[in-house]
Amino acid sequence: MRIINLDRISGGSLPPEVQEAMVEAVRAEWGNPSSQHRLGDRGAEALEKARKQVACLINARQEKEVVFTSGGTESINHAIKGVALSKGEKGRHIVTSNIEHNAVLRTLRRLRMMDFQVTSVPVDDTGLVNPDDVGKAIREDTILVTIMHANNEIGTLQPIEEIGHITRRKNVLFHCDAVASTGVVPVDVQKMPVDLLSFAANQFYGPSGVGGLYIRQGTALWPLLDGGVQENNKRAGTENLIGIVGMGTAAELAVRDMSQRTAHALRLKHRLREGLKARISHILFNGHPERSVPNLVSVSIQFIEGEGIVLMLDEEGIAVSTRSACAAGALQASHVLLSIGRDFADAQGTLVVSFGTDNTEEDIDRFLTVLEGSVQTLRDMSPLYRKAMAAS
Amino acid sequence: MRIINLDRISGGSLPPEVQEAMVEAVRAEWGNPSSQHRLGDRGAEALEKARKQVACLINARQEKEVVFTSGGTESINHAIKGVALSKGEKGRHIVTSNIEHNAVLRTLRRLRMMDFQVTSVPVDDTGLVNPDDVGKAIREDTILVTIMHANNEIGTLQPIEEIGHITRRKNVLFHCDAVASTGVVPVDVQKMPVDLLSFAANQFYGPSGVGGLYIRQGTALWPLLDGGVQENNKRAGTENLIGIVGMGTAAELAVRDMSQRTAHALRLKHRLREGLKARISHILFNGHPERSVPNLVSVSIQFIEGEGIVLMLDEEGIAVSTRSACAAGALQASHVLLSIGRDFADAQGTLVVSFGTDNTEEDIDRFLTVLEGSVQTLRDMSPLYRKAMAAS
Repeated sequence: MRIINLDRISGGSLPPEVQEAMVEAVRAEWGNPSSQHRLGDRGAEALEKARKQVACLINARQEKEVVFTSGGTESINHAIKGVALSKGEKGRHIVTSNIEHNAVLRTLRRLRMMDFQVTSVPVDDTGLVNPDDVGKAIREDTILVTIMHANNEIGTLQPIEEIGHITRRKNVLFHCDAVASTGVVPVDVQKMPVDLLSFAANQFYGPSGVGGLYIRQGTALWPLLDGGVQENNKRAGTENLIGIVGMGTAAELAVRDMSQRTAHALRLKHRLREGLKARISHILFNGHPERSVPNLVSVSIQFIEGEGIVLMLDEEGIAVSTRSACAAGALQASHVLLSIGRDFADAQGTLVVSFGTDNTEEDIDRFLTVLEGSVQTLRDMSPLYRKAMAAS
Repeated sequence: MRIINLDRISGGSLPPEVQEAMVEAVRAEWGNPSSQHRLGDRGAEALEKARKQVACLINARQEKEVVFTSGGTESINHAIKGVALSKGEKGRHIVTSNIEHNAVLRTLRRLRMMDFQVTSVPVDDTGLVNPDDVGKAIREDTILVTIMHANNEIGTLQPIEEIGHITRRKNVLFHCDAVASTGVVPVDVQKMPVDLLSFAANQFYGPSGVGGLYIRQGTALWPLLDGGVQENNKRAGTENLIGIVGMGTAAELAVRDMSQRTAHALRLKHRLREGLKARISHILFNGHPERSVPNLVSVSIQFIEGEGIVLMLDEEGIAVSTRSACAAGALQASHVLLSIGRDFADAQGTLVVSFGTDNTEEDIDRFLTVLEGSVQTLRDMSPLYRKAMAAS
């Protein structure tokens, strides 16, 4: 059975071009890029070709500003811990927002255990940070501001340029978690006044477990991985060359196809939102209506449990999610949804529907039909729903 | 031109079985192993199959004691920093040896910048640590002993069991960097009294950029990567599933083929050592004559520069190394060779010749012939050599 993958941001198949590049890399006899013979040269060439492709995607001025990592989580840990631990003498205060990814939240929680202090600014009911709040939160001892670009659960895009102008003026380093946006919408480090920017290949149809950290030239921070002299001495360890080659190809495709991918996603998003409004009562859309990524819709369906819906849809061959896969086992209500003002029950009844190049309008229609039936079934069993209906 | 790869421990082609498993993974439609639908289940199955294969290789009692990482360097950083930072209140002293890999050395150097203290025990002229020295170095405030299993430059295998009995008796955690030995010689965590053990797939014909950290049940340490709840909450980040599948298959092959691989490597090692002795004068073998891995020979060729030989051999289609690839750009004399008593000049004239299943006796013979000529050419140009010959 073909599974309709509407949890596309969590995973799925790789485009043919990425598959071919990776298969070639699997079959190649490449040496270690650090070796000083021609087998090593072959490996180094493949590595540097990928770095060029990725630098182009984010418009890095110099290729060496791109450091390959094992994914968004490593990039984020590297950026935040790397700044904090190297600048701990100068100050121990960090500014963030209430709706960051767990990789940021838990990294900051770890740093709190090491006597760092964190100020977290709120967001409005669309998930937007107010740049003025960031400015007010910055203190004399602030060493870092870390704010995400796109939120991975509700899609809202933050005003990174405005925030960056403030951090520049106040002379504080700025890290942007751009994992959910890089390769999806334009991410241009010449326009974004960031010092550090994290991204991951699997968000733009590259393989999982590969990512990058953009380190603007002159930005000093400790490596997370100490050891060999790879990656310009910024990230030790023999490179995941097969994965990096996949990321490079995926980056090239993202540059080439971004506008048509966006147009396709926006068509599906519109169809999905309109279909939901027409077919399911008592729903709330989450995130900013315009300032958001094109490839996901977050919807809170009242009087149901999201997990129940996920299982019922799965039975019908449709994959969706209640939240980010990274948090799927965490069993708590999403801090993102609570932060934009959803109550606990609505947060638990939330679906994140994400889609990509391999999804069709028929996928959306089939999803809507199955969802409508599943929601009705679950609500018919819900005493809360009957009570609410009787009261209205 | 077929390149004769005698720098096999640095890299090379993957065995057909590993290639096929990885190509299948590249082409698969697997979801995120953390997702709660059947696409995710497929990913989770592939992940857990690999974990079983790897657990079997090191004889872990429980599969969940195996944590997948981005390679040996991450595993080592995770183990050492994870113990140090979580136990910093209890003590800030760590014991290591003088011949550890840069991933250990530089991690410890980083911790020294954070007010940890390190005692490094010497090795004898074969590269062996004396377990008594480790026992004497342990203090009241020692929180960790980190000693490698096989040295990656000279091959010497340390007496891990004896060292582990001491750390157990003194109630200090023991991390073993087993990157150069796991999958090459038997590594059995039921026999080795270690709490943490690092290893990497590319040392046993798996892909680069994938590794593992064995964490014995009950061993408490901080993660290096904070974020999602992957890997039993021990290592956050979406998994490099394609690489992990490759490592799993490579682990299974290592279990199946270890004895015949060893026999083959020992044949080549014997032929190489005898050939060197017969054909090149003024050479010194490095490492322990018996207690060492079968797949490498380290030889110091007096009155030459190792880098010159590497380039001349490369011209003839033969890849060898002067030292570990991770340190190739570092330009200093090997601390390992200096620690076993080589002088600076001999250290600079050292070749590490490593080989594997795809090397033949003809490769060794061809290498010996080309080496003999190259060494003669270089020595003929060397005033030091002429002087030494005149004096003798």
